[in-house]
Amino acid sequence: MMNPEKCSVVLVGPQGSLNIGSVCRVMKNFGFSDLRLVTPQADHLDKQATDMAVKAKNLLNDAVVYQSLADSLTDCHLVIGTTRRFGKYREDFLYPEDIVRITKRLDNDSRTALVFGREDSGLTTAELDLCHQFLTIPTSEDLPSMNLAQAVCVCLYECNKGRAVTSAEGSARMLADSENVEAMFQHMRCTLNDIEYLDQQNPDHMLRTFRRIFGRAGLDERETNILRGLWNRIDWLNSQR
Amino acid sequence: MMNPEKCSVVLVGPQGSLNIGSVCRVMKNFGFSDLRLVTPQADHLDKQATDMAVKAKNLLNDAVVYQSLADSLTDCHLVIGTTRRFGKYREDFLYPEDIVRITKRLDNDSRTALVFGREDSGLTTAELDLCHQFLTIPTSEDLPSMNLAQAVCVCLYECNKGRAVTSAEGSARMLADSENVEAMFQHMRCTLNDIEYLDQQNPDHMLRTFRRIFGRAGLDERETNILRGLWNRIDWLNSQR
Repeated sequence: MMNPEKCSVVLVGPQGSLNIGSVCRVMKNFGFSDLRLVTPQADHLDKQATDMAVKAKNLLNDAVVYQSLADSLTDCHLVIGTTRRFGKYREDFLYPEDIVRITKRLDNDSRTALVFGREDSGLTTAELDLCHQFLTIPTSEDLPSMNLAQAVCVCLYECNKGRAVTSAEGSARMLADSENVEAMFQHMRCTLNDIEYLDQQNPDHMLRTFRRIFGRAGLDERETNILRGLWNRIDWLNSQR
Repeated sequence: MMNPEKCSVVLVGPQGSLNIGSVCRVMKNFGFSDLRLVTPQADHLDKQATDMAVKAKNLLNDAVVYQSLADSLTDCHLVIGTTRRFGKYREDFLYPEDIVRITKRLDNDSRTALVFGREDSGLTTAELDLCHQFLTIPTSEDLPSMNLAQAVCVCLYECNKGRAVTSAEGSARMLADSENVEAMFQHMRCTLNDIEYLDQQNPDHMLRTFRRIFGRAGLDERETNILRGLWNRIDWLNSQR
Protein backbone atom coordinates (compact mmCIF):
# COMPACT_ATOMS: atom_id res chain seq x y z
CA MET A 1 0.00 0.00 0.00
CA MET A 2 1.13 3.54 -0.79
CA ASN A 3 2.67 5.05 2.33
CA PRO A 4 3.54 8.70 1.62
CA GLU A 5 6.42 8.53 4.08
CA LYS A 6 7.97 5.92 1.81
CA CYS A 7 7.60 7.95 -1.37
CA SER A 8 10.00 10.67 -2.55
CA VAL A 9 9.31 13.33 -5.15
CA VAL A 10 12.44 13.98 -7.21
CA LEU A 11 12.64 17.07 -9.42
CA VAL A 12 15.48 17.00 -11.92
CA GLY A 13 16.84 20.39 -13.02
CA PRO A 14 13.73 22.43 -12.13
CA GLN A 15 13.96 25.90 -13.73
CA GLY A 16 11.27 27.83 -11.89
CA SER A 17 11.20 28.48 -8.15
CA LEU A 18 7.47 29.14 -8.49
CA ASN A 19 7.02 25.55 -9.66
CA ILE A 20 9.11 24.18 -6.79
CA GLY A 21 6.93 26.06 -4.31
CA SER A 22 3.76 24.76 -5.98
CA VAL A 23 5.08 21.22 -5.83
CA CYS A 24 5.62 21.57 -2.07
CA ARG A 25 2.06 22.78 -1.53
CA VAL A 26 0.50 19.91 -3.46
CA MET A 27 2.82 17.39 -1.76
CA LYS A 28 1.54 18.55 1.61
CA ASN A 29 -2.05 18.59 0.28
CA PHE A 30 -1.73 14.88 -0.35
CA GLY A 31 0.37 13.98 2.70
CA PHE A 32 3.83 13.73 1.11
CA SER A 33 6.93 15.36 2.57
CA ASP A 34 10.16 14.05 1.04
CA LEU A 35 11.32 16.40 -1.73
CA ARG A 36 14.63 15.91 -3.54
CA LEU A 37 16.10 18.45 -5.94
CA VAL A 38 18.68 17.39 -8.49
CA THR A 39 20.82 20.28 -9.80
CA PRO A 40 18.02 22.84 -9.45
CA GLN A 41 18.35 25.85 -11.79
CA ALA A 42 16.35 28.10 -9.47
CA ASP A 43 16.65 29.09 -5.82
CA HIS A 44 14.07 26.96 -4.02
CA LEU A 45 14.21 29.23 -0.98
CA ASP A 46 13.44 32.51 -2.77
CA LYS A 47 10.28 34.57 -2.31
CA GLN A 48 8.41 33.10 -5.29
CA ALA A 49 8.94 29.57 -4.00
CA THR A 50 7.91 30.38 -0.43
CA ASP A 51 4.89 32.38 -1.62
CA MET A 52 3.62 29.46 -3.68
CA ALA A 53 4.35 26.89 -0.98
CA VAL A 54 2.06 28.75 1.46
CA LYS A 55 1.86 26.48 4.53
CA ALA A 56 4.24 23.92 3.05
CA LYS A 57 7.38 26.04 3.53
CA ASN A 58 8.79 23.36 5.81
CA LEU A 59 9.07 21.07 2.77
CA LEU A 60 11.15 23.70 0.98
CA ASN A 61 13.45 24.01 3.97
CA ASP A 62 13.79 20.24 4.32
CA ALA A 63 14.40 19.61 0.60
CA VAL A 64 17.77 17.99 -0.09
CA VAL A 65 19.83 19.05 -3.10
CA TYR A 66 21.78 16.42 -5.08
CA GLN A 67 24.38 16.74 -7.80
CA SER A 68 23.03 13.87 -9.90
CA LEU A 69 19.86 11.82 -10.24
CA ALA A 70 21.80 8.67 -9.33
CA ASP A 71 22.90 10.25 -6.03
CA SER A 72 19.30 11.12 -5.17
CA LEU A 73 18.09 7.55 -5.69
CA THR A 74 20.51 5.47 -3.62
CA ASP A 75 17.95 4.55 -0.94
CA CYS A 76 15.05 4.08 -3.39
CA HIS A 77 13.72 0.66 -4.38
CA LEU A 78 11.26 1.53 -7.12
CA VAL A 79 12.02 4.45 -9.44
CA ILE A 80 9.20 5.72 -11.62
CA GLY A 81 10.20 8.30 -14.24
CA THR A 82 7.63 10.55 -15.87
CA THR A 83 8.04 11.29 -19.56
CA ARG A 84 6.19 12.00 -22.75
CA ARG A 85 8.96 10.46 -24.84
CA PHE A 86 7.57 7.21 -26.08
CA GLY A 87 9.62 5.49 -28.74
CA LYS A 88 10.19 1.80 -28.46
CA TYR A 89 9.16 1.43 -24.81
CA ARG A 90 5.67 2.74 -25.28
CA GLU A 91 4.00 -0.56 -24.42
CA ASP A 92 5.50 -0.46 -20.94
CA PHE A 93 4.11 2.90 -19.86
CA LEU A 94 2.23 3.31 -16.62
CA TYR A 95 -0.59 5.77 -16.07
CA PRO A 96 -0.92 7.71 -12.79
CA GLU A 97 -3.67 5.38 -11.58
CA ASP A 98 -1.23 2.45 -11.86
CA ILE A 99 1.18 3.80 -9.23
CA VAL A 100 -0.80 2.45 -6.29
CA ARG A 101 -1.15 -0.97 -7.90
CA ILE A 102 2.58 -1.15 -8.54
CA THR A 103 3.63 0.03 -5.08
CA LYS A 104 1.23 -2.44 -3.43
CA ARG A 105 3.66 -5.16 -4.41
CA LEU A 106 6.42 -3.58 -2.35
CA ASP A 107 7.07 -4.35 1.28
CA ASN A 108 6.63 -1.69 3.92
CA ASP A 109 10.27 -0.63 4.02
CA SER A 110 10.65 -0.09 0.27
CA ARG A 111 11.01 3.47 -0.91
CA THR A 112 9.44 4.68 -4.17
CA ALA A 113 10.78 7.66 -6.12
CA LEU A 114 8.59 9.63 -8.51
CA VAL A 115 10.98 11.43 -10.85
CA PHE A 116 9.99 14.53 -12.83
CA GLY A 117 12.17 16.21 -15.47
CA ARG A 118 12.88 19.78 -16.54
CA GLU A 119 9.98 22.06 -17.47
CA ASP A 120 11.15 22.43 -21.07
CA SER A 121 12.94 19.20 -21.93
CA GLY A 122 12.00 16.55 -19.37
CA LEU A 123 14.39 13.74 -18.48
CA THR A 124 17.37 12.80 -20.64
CA THR A 125 17.84 9.29 -21.98
CA ALA A 126 20.59 8.69 -19.41
CA GLU A 127 18.24 9.79 -16.62
CA LEU A 128 15.42 7.59 -17.94
CA ASP A 129 17.87 4.69 -17.85
CA LEU A 130 17.93 5.04 -14.05
CA CYS A 131 14.15 4.60 -13.88
CA HIS A 132 12.57 1.16 -13.45
CA GLN A 133 9.23 2.15 -14.86
CA PHE A 134 8.00 4.96 -17.09
CA LEU A 135 4.85 6.91 -16.43
CA THR A 136 2.93 9.24 -18.70
CA ILE A 137 -0.17 11.38 -18.14
CA PRO A 138 -2.63 11.19 -21.05
CA THR A 139 -3.17 14.69 -22.44
CA SER A 140 -4.62 16.34 -25.52
CA GLU A 141 -2.56 16.47 -28.72
CA ASP A 142 -3.37 20.19 -28.95
CA LEU A 143 -1.27 20.92 -25.85
CA PRO A 144 0.36 17.77 -24.48
CA SER A 145 2.90 19.46 -22.19
CA MET A 146 1.73 19.93 -18.62
CA ASN A 147 3.02 22.37 -16.05
CA LEU A 148 5.52 20.59 -13.76
CA ALA A 149 3.57 21.15 -10.54
CA GLN A 150 0.33 20.05 -12.26
CA ALA A 151 1.98 16.79 -13.35
CA VAL A 152 3.14 16.18 -9.77
CA CYS A 153 -0.38 17.05 -8.61
CA VAL A 154 -2.01 14.38 -10.78
CA CYS A 155 0.42 11.67 -9.65
CA LEU A 156 0.12 12.45 -5.93
CA TYR A 157 -3.66 12.80 -6.19
CA GLU A 158 -3.78 9.24 -7.55
CA CYS A 159 -1.45 8.00 -4.80
CA ASN A 160 -3.59 9.64 -2.13
CA LYS A 161 -6.80 8.30 -3.68
CA GLY A 162 -5.53 4.77 -3.37
CA ARG A 163 -4.65 5.45 0.24
CA ALA A 164 -8.05 6.63 1.35
CA VAL A 165 -9.91 3.41 0.37
CA THR A 166 -13.18 5.18 -0.25
CA SER A 167 -16.12 3.83 -2.17
CA ALA A 168 -16.14 4.66 -5.88
CA GLU A 169 -19.76 5.68 -5.39
CA GLY A 170 -18.83 8.48 -3.01
CA SER A 171 -19.39 8.30 0.72
CA ALA A 172 -22.19 6.17 2.04
CA ARG A 173 -25.59 7.57 2.98
CA MET A 174 -28.11 5.81 5.18
CA LEU A 175 -31.38 5.85 3.26
CA ALA A 176 -34.84 5.69 4.78
CA ASP A 177 -36.27 2.19 4.76
CA SER A 178 -38.93 1.20 2.30
CA GLU A 179 -41.73 1.20 4.88
CA ASN A 180 -40.96 4.79 5.78
CA VAL A 181 -40.77 5.89 2.13
CA GLU A 182 -44.00 4.09 1.21
CA ALA A 183 -45.82 5.69 4.13
CA MET A 184 -44.65 9.08 2.81
CA PHE A 185 -45.93 8.23 -0.68
CA GLN A 186 -49.31 7.05 0.64
CA HIS A 187 -49.66 10.30 2.58
CA MET A 188 -48.63 12.23 -0.56
CA ARG A 189 -51.22 10.36 -2.64
CA CYS A 190 -54.04 11.22 -0.20
CA THR A 191 -52.99 14.84 0.07
CA LEU A 192 -52.61 15.47 -3.66
CA ASN A 193 -55.87 13.67 -4.29
CA ASP A 194 -57.71 15.76 -1.72
CA ILE A 195 -56.54 19.00 -3.27
CA GLU A 196 -57.56 17.68 -6.70
CA TYR A 197 -54.08 17.97 -8.09
CA LEU A 198 -54.01 14.39 -9.39
CA ASP A 199 -55.86 13.34 -12.54
CA GLN A 200 -59.02 11.67 -11.18
CA GLN A 201 -59.01 9.18 -14.08
CA ASN A 202 -55.45 8.11 -13.46
CA PRO A 203 -54.14 9.38 -10.12
CA ASP A 204 -51.04 7.22 -10.21
CA HIS A 205 -49.70 8.67 -13.44
CA MET A 206 -48.37 11.85 -11.83
CA LEU A 207 -47.45 10.13 -8.59
CA ARG A 208 -45.21 7.86 -10.61
CA THR A 209 -43.25 10.92 -11.76
CA PHE A 210 -42.66 11.85 -8.12
CA ARG A 211 -41.65 8.28 -7.38
CA ARG A 212 -39.05 8.54 -10.14
CA ILE A 213 -37.71 11.89 -8.86
CA PHE A 214 -37.44 10.76 -5.23
CA GLY A 215 -36.21 7.33 -6.31
CA ARG A 216 -33.31 8.84 -8.23
CA ALA A 217 -32.53 11.16 -5.32
CA GLY A 218 -32.63 8.45 -2.65
CA LEU A 219 -34.39 9.85 0.44
CA ASP A 220 -33.07 9.58 3.95
CA GLU A 221 -35.32 9.54 7.02
CA ARG A 222 -34.98 13.25 7.75
CA GLU A 223 -36.02 14.03 4.19
CA THR A 224 -39.10 11.79 4.27
CA ASN A 225 -40.10 13.51 7.52
CA ILE A 226 -39.71 16.93 5.91
CA LEU A 227 -41.88 15.84 2.97
CA ARG A 228 -44.56 14.53 5.35
CA GLY A 229 -44.41 17.88 7.11
CA LEU A 230 -45.24 19.55 3.80
CA TRP A 231 -48.18 17.21 3.13
CA ASN A 232 -49.46 17.89 6.68
CA ARG A 233 -49.31 21.60 6.01
CA ILE A 234 -51.25 21.22 2.76
CA ASP A 235 -53.83 19.01 4.54
CA TRP A 236 -54.37 21.77 7.08
CA LEU A 237 -54.63 24.38 4.34
CA ASN A 238 -57.22 22.30 2.55
CA SER A 239 -59.27 21.94 5.75
CA GLN A 240 -59.56 25.76 5.90
CA ARG A 241 -61.43 26.07 2.60
CA MET B 1 -20.11 10.31 -21.89
CA MET B 2 -17.92 13.24 -20.91
CA ASN B 3 -17.59 15.50 -23.94
CA PRO B 4 -15.22 18.38 -23.10
CA GLU B 5 -17.10 20.63 -25.50
CA LYS B 6 -20.14 20.25 -23.27
CA CYS B 7 -18.32 21.08 -20.07
CA SER B 8 -17.64 24.59 -18.81
CA VAL B 9 -15.12 25.57 -16.16
CA VAL B 10 -16.52 28.41 -14.05
CA LEU B 11 -14.19 30.39 -11.77
CA VAL B 12 -15.99 32.56 -9.24
CA GLY B 13 -14.11 35.65 -8.06
CA PRO B 14 -10.61 34.42 -8.95
CA GLN B 15 -8.02 36.67 -7.27
CA GLY B 16 -4.82 35.73 -9.11
CA SER B 17 -4.23 36.16 -12.82
CA LEU B 18 -1.45 33.58 -12.53
CA ASN B 19 -4.03 31.02 -11.43
CA ILE B 20 -6.37 31.93 -14.31
CA GLY B 21 -3.53 31.39 -16.78
CA SER B 22 -2.64 28.05 -15.17
CA VAL B 23 -6.27 26.96 -15.37
CA CYS B 24 -6.26 27.68 -19.12
CA ARG B 25 -3.15 25.60 -19.69
CA VAL B 26 -4.50 22.58 -17.83
CA MET B 27 -7.88 22.94 -19.55
CA LYS B 28 -6.16 22.70 -22.92
CA ASN B 29 -3.96 19.84 -21.64
CA PHE B 30 -7.13 17.85 -21.09
CA GLY B 31 -9.09 19.05 -24.12
CA PHE B 32 -11.40 21.61 -22.48
CA SER B 33 -11.99 25.10 -23.86
CA ASP B 34 -15.02 26.84 -22.31
CA LEU B 35 -13.85 29.12 -19.48
CA ARG B 36 -16.27 31.42 -17.65
CA LEU B 37 -15.15 34.05 -15.16
CA VAL B 38 -17.59 35.42 -12.61
CA THR B 39 -16.59 38.82 -11.21
CA PRO B 40 -12.84 38.15 -11.55
CA GLN B 41 -10.68 40.18 -9.14
CA ALA B 42 -7.65 39.99 -11.43
CA ASP B 43 -7.01 40.93 -15.05
CA HIS B 44 -7.13 37.64 -16.92
CA LEU B 45 -5.38 39.18 -19.91
CA ASP B 46 -2.32 40.52 -18.06
CA LYS B 47 1.24 39.26 -18.51
CA GLN B 48 1.17 36.79 -15.59
CA ALA B 49 -1.93 35.11 -16.98
CA THR B 50 -0.64 34.88 -20.54
CA ASP B 51 2.78 33.66 -19.34
CA MET B 52 1.19 30.83 -17.36
CA ALA B 53 -1.27 29.91 -20.11
CA VAL B 54 1.63 29.31 -22.54
CA LYS B 55 -0.01 27.82 -25.64
CA ALA B 56 -3.52 28.13 -24.20
CA LYS B 57 -3.74 31.92 -24.58
CA ASN B 58 -6.70 31.48 -26.90
CA LEU B 59 -8.72 30.24 -23.92
CA LEU B 60 -7.90 33.44 -22.02
CA ASN B 61 -9.04 35.54 -24.98
CA ASP B 62 -12.23 33.53 -25.40
CA ALA B 63 -13.14 33.54 -21.68
CA VAL B 64 -16.48 35.22 -20.99
CA VAL B 65 -16.91 37.43 -17.92
CA TYR B 66 -20.19 37.35 -15.98
CA GLN B 67 -21.55 39.56 -13.23
CA SER B 68 -23.05 36.71 -11.21
CA LEU B 69 -22.77 32.94 -10.95
CA ALA B 70 -26.44 32.59 -11.91
CA ASP B 71 -25.82 34.52 -15.15
CA SER B 72 -22.96 32.20 -16.06
CA LEU B 73 -25.09 29.07 -15.62
CA THR B 74 -28.24 29.79 -17.63
CA ASP B 75 -27.40 27.27 -20.37
CA CYS B 76 -26.00 24.62 -17.99
CA HIS B 77 -27.95 21.52 -17.06
CA LEU B 78 -25.75 19.94 -14.41
CA VAL B 79 -23.92 22.26 -12.02
CA ILE B 80 -21.20 20.73 -9.85
CA GLY B 81 -19.78 23.01 -7.17
CA THR B 82 -16.43 22.31 -5.52
CA THR B 83 -16.15 22.99 -1.82
CA ARG B 84 -14.46 21.91 1.38
CA ARG B 85 -17.37 23.19 3.49
CA PHE B 86 -19.09 20.11 4.74
CA GLY B 87 -21.62 20.62 7.47
CA LYS B 88 -24.79 18.62 7.46
CA TYR B 89 -24.84 17.79 3.76
CA ARG B 90 -21.57 15.92 3.84
CA GLU B 91 -23.12 12.61 2.90
CA ASP B 92 -23.90 13.86 -0.59
CA PHE B 93 -20.37 14.76 -1.68
CA LEU B 94 -18.89 13.57 -4.96
CA TYR B 95 -15.22 12.87 -5.53
CA PRO B 96 -13.47 13.85 -8.79
CA GLU B 97 -13.66 10.27 -10.07
CA ASP B 98 -17.47 10.43 -9.78
CA ILE B 99 -17.87 13.23 -12.36
CA VAL B 100 -17.74 10.90 -15.35
CA ARG B 101 -20.26 8.50 -13.81
CA ILE B 102 -22.67 11.37 -13.15
CA THR B 103 -22.32 12.98 -16.57
CA LYS B 104 -22.84 9.62 -18.27
CA ARG B 105 -26.50 9.90 -17.35
CA LEU B 106 -26.89 13.11 -19.37
CA ASP B 107 -27.76 13.27 -23.04
CA ASN B 108 -25.34 14.70 -25.58
CA ASP B 109 -26.79 18.22 -25.56
CA SER B 110 -26.61 18.72 -21.80
CA ARG B 111 -23.98 21.10 -20.55
CA THR B 112 -22.09 20.49 -17.31
CA ALA B 113 -20.55 23.31 -15.28
CA LEU B 114 -17.66 22.68 -12.89
CA VAL B 115 -17.69 25.62 -10.47
CA PHE B 116 -14.64 26.66 -8.45
CA GLY B 117 -14.68 29.38 -5.77
CA ARG B 118 -12.27 32.04 -4.62
CA GLU B 119 -8.69 31.10 -3.68
CA ASP B 120 -9.13 32.17 -0.05
CA SER B 121 -12.80 31.62 0.76
CA GLY B 122 -14.30 29.33 -1.89
CA LEU B 123 -17.99 29.57 -2.79
CA THR B 124 -20.57 31.31 -0.61
CA THR B 125 -23.65 29.53 0.66
CA ALA B 126 -25.79 31.41 -1.88
CA GLU B 127 -23.46 30.27 -4.67
CA LEU B 128 -23.53 26.68 -3.44
CA ASP B 129 -27.32 26.88 -3.54
CA LEU B 130 -27.05 27.20 -7.32
CA CYS B 131 -25.11 23.94 -7.56
CA HIS B 132 -26.91 20.64 -8.04
CA GLN B 133 -24.10 18.50 -6.67
CA PHE B 134 -21.10 19.16 -4.43
CA LEU B 135 -17.63 17.86 -5.09
CA THR B 136 -14.63 17.69 -2.81
CA ILE B 137 -11.05 16.56 -3.36
CA PRO B 138 -9.75 14.44 -0.48
CA THR B 139 -6.65 16.10 0.97
CA SER B 140 -4.49 15.87 4.06
CA GLU B 141 -5.66 17.52 7.28
CA ASP B 142 -2.23 19.10 7.59
CA LEU B 143 -2.87 21.29 4.53
CA PRO B 144 -6.34 20.70 3.11
CA SER B 145 -6.53 23.80 0.90
CA MET B 146 -5.38 23.23 -2.67
CA ASN B 147 -4.21 25.80 -5.17
CA LEU B 148 -7.11 26.76 -7.48
CA ALA B 149 -5.44 25.59 -10.69
CA GLN B 150 -4.39 22.33 -9.04
CA ALA B 151 -7.97 21.64 -8.01
CA VAL B 152 -9.13 22.27 -11.58
CA CYS B 153 -6.29 20.03 -12.77
CA VAL B 154 -7.44 17.06 -10.69
CA CYS B 155 -11.06 17.38 -11.84
CA LEU B 156 -10.22 17.70 -15.53
CA TYR B 157 -7.66 14.90 -15.33
CA GLU B 158 -10.43 12.62 -14.06
CA CYS B 159 -12.83 13.81 -16.75
CA ASN B 160 -10.25 13.16 -19.45
CA LYS B 161 -9.45 9.74 -18.01
CA GLY B 162 -13.05 8.71 -18.22
CA ARG B 163 -13.61 10.27 -21.63
CA ALA B 164 -12.79 7.10 -23.52
CA VAL B 165 -15.15 5.01 -21.42
CA THR B 166 -18.47 4.50 -23.17
CA SER B 167 -21.77 4.51 -21.37
CA ALA B 168 -23.30 1.14 -20.64
CA GLU B 169 -25.55 1.99 -17.73
CA GLY B 170 -29.01 3.42 -18.32
CA SER B 171 -30.26 5.80 -20.97
CA ALA B 172 -29.24 9.43 -21.22
CA ARG B 173 -31.51 12.17 -19.89
CA MET B 174 -31.80 15.80 -20.97
CA LEU B 175 -31.98 17.85 -17.79
CA ALA B 176 -33.80 21.15 -17.37
CA ASP B 177 -31.45 24.10 -17.67
CA SER B 178 -30.41 26.05 -14.62
CA GLU B 179 -32.67 29.03 -15.40
CA ASN B 180 -35.71 26.78 -15.51
CA VAL B 181 -34.77 24.98 -12.29
CA GLU B 182 -34.09 28.26 -10.47
CA ALA B 183 -37.47 29.65 -11.56
CA MET B 184 -39.10 26.54 -10.09
CA PHE B 185 -37.19 27.01 -6.81
CA GLN B 186 -38.16 30.68 -6.62
CA HIS B 187 -41.79 29.74 -7.13
CA MET B 188 -41.44 27.01 -4.50
CA ARG B 189 -39.92 29.48 -2.06
CA CYS B 190 -42.82 31.93 -2.47
CA THR B 191 -45.43 29.21 -2.19
CA LEU B 192 -43.99 27.52 0.89
CA ASN B 193 -43.46 30.90 2.48
CA ASP B 194 -47.05 31.97 1.81
CA ILE B 195 -48.43 28.84 3.44
CA GLU B 196 -46.09 29.43 6.41
CA TYR B 197 -44.37 26.11 5.97
CA LEU B 198 -40.89 27.63 6.03
CA ASP B 199 -39.24 28.77 9.22
CA GLN B 200 -39.72 32.55 9.16
CA GLN B 201 -36.37 33.06 10.87
CA ASN B 202 -34.48 30.97 8.34
CA PRO B 203 -36.62 30.23 5.27
CA ASP B 204 -33.69 28.89 3.28
CA HIS B 205 -32.83 26.14 5.72
CA MET B 206 -35.62 23.82 4.62
CA LEU B 207 -35.46 24.95 1.00
CA ARG B 208 -31.86 23.81 0.97
CA THR B 209 -32.98 20.29 1.83
CA PHE B 210 -35.28 20.36 -1.20
CA ARG B 211 -32.43 21.72 -3.31
CA ARG B 212 -30.31 18.76 -2.23
CA ILE B 213 -33.07 16.23 -2.99
CA PHE B 214 -33.86 17.63 -6.44
CA GLY B 215 -30.16 18.21 -7.12
CA ARG B 216 -29.39 14.55 -6.54
CA ALA B 217 -32.36 13.51 -8.63
CA GLY B 218 -31.58 15.80 -11.58
CA LEU B 219 -34.85 17.31 -12.84
CA ASP B 220 -35.89 17.35 -16.49
CA GLU B 221 -38.16 20.04 -17.92
CA ARG B 222 -41.34 18.01 -17.63
CA GLU B 223 -40.60 17.42 -13.95
CA THR B 224 -39.97 21.09 -13.18
CA ASN B 225 -43.29 21.85 -14.90
CA ILE B 226 -45.08 19.25 -12.80
CA LEU B 227 -43.58 20.72 -9.64
CA ARG B 228 -44.66 24.21 -10.68
CA GLY B 229 -48.13 22.79 -11.27
CA LEU B 230 -48.15 21.61 -7.68
CA TRP B 231 -47.03 25.01 -6.37
CA ASN B 232 -49.77 26.65 -8.50
CA ARG B 233 -52.34 24.36 -6.99
CA ILE B 234 -51.16 25.16 -3.47
CA ASP B 235 -51.20 28.90 -4.32
CA TRP B 236 -54.82 28.56 -5.40
CA LEU B 237 -55.69 26.60 -2.27
CA ASN B 238 -54.11 29.28 -0.12
CA SER B 239 -56.12 32.00 -1.88
CA GLN B 240 -59.33 30.22 -0.81
CA ARG B 241 -58.66 30.59 2.92
